Amino acid sequence: MIEPFDDTYFMKKALQEAEIAFEKGEIPVGAVIAIDNRIIARGHNLTETLTDVTAHAEMQTITAAANFLGGKYLQKCTLYVTLEPCQMCAGALYWSQISKIVYGARDEQRGCINLKTKLHPKTTISGGVLADEASALLKRFFVEKRNLN
Amino acid sequence: MIEPFDDTYFMKKALQEAEIAFEKGEIPVGAVIAIDNRIIARGHNLTETLTDVTAHAEMQTITAAANFLGGKYLQKCTLYVTLEPCQMCAGALYWSQISKIVYGARDEQRGCINLKTKLHPKTTISGGVLADEASALLKRFFVEKRNLN
Repeated sequence: MIEPFDDTYFMKKALQEAEIAFEKGEIPVGAVIAIDNRIIARGHNLTETLTDVTAHAEMQTITAAANFLGGKYLQKCTLYVTLEPCQMCAGALYWSQISKIVYGARDEQRGCINLKTKLHPKTTISGGVLADEASALLKRFFVEKRNLN
Repeated sequence: MIEPFDDTYFMKKALQEAEIAFEKGEIPVGAVIAIDNRIIARGHNLTETLTDVTAHAEMQTITAAANFLGGKYLQKCTLYVTLEPCQMCAGALYWSQISKIVYGARDEQRGCINLKTKLHPKTTISGGVLADEASALLKRFFVEKRNLN
């Protein structure tokens, strides 16, 4: 029997957000935040649209989730994001005290793991969920961008 | 002769922002961003007001400066902030490619220096400007908060 609300289910929703970013000409990264198997926030990278380096998918989604919950802490929540969070986003997740972070593709250069960004002691992090799909979308974006220039 | 536009001048403006945060019941941290000796953005901590852990003074100010400049990179800009930036804010400053960061008080526990957040190679960081004033305001905030509870 297939568990309908597993990590893959939620990561697919995050990938849908990444695809929306792609369509907007944004580096395609998407995220959702879930609590009790329910999605309470969705977001995608909007750095170009908003002309703002802080507008990463995770930041949009953290803000939206806090707004939904009416409180700034995201305890008991899980973030699903198609690309490993950067220092900024991991730093925001530290403040949010989020329970769990699940990412898709690794970001060896700019991701929080190799850069050793401190996470909250209450937070666990794991990755590799639909990583190939997330990477393929990013690669397609950069290939198309190169061909346009 | 006194140089009118030195680091102390701009840090005083950041301290004024921290005082506005204090009046709002926010942890009193303020920031300004200057370019060519001109302030183009001001901000203060709004995490309680906005119910949003991402609403640090620096984040508000980075967004406002990019909005003013019409571009997301803050090259040639200097950020003045009353407290050493955290991982999130230093991570945002990394993406902004800001030229210079000047902070007031150190944050040994949660600041980017001890946590070794990676800054952009183009960015320099220094601190201690009006540190006593920034620390005193923070201490006063936490003393008053304790007395209210």
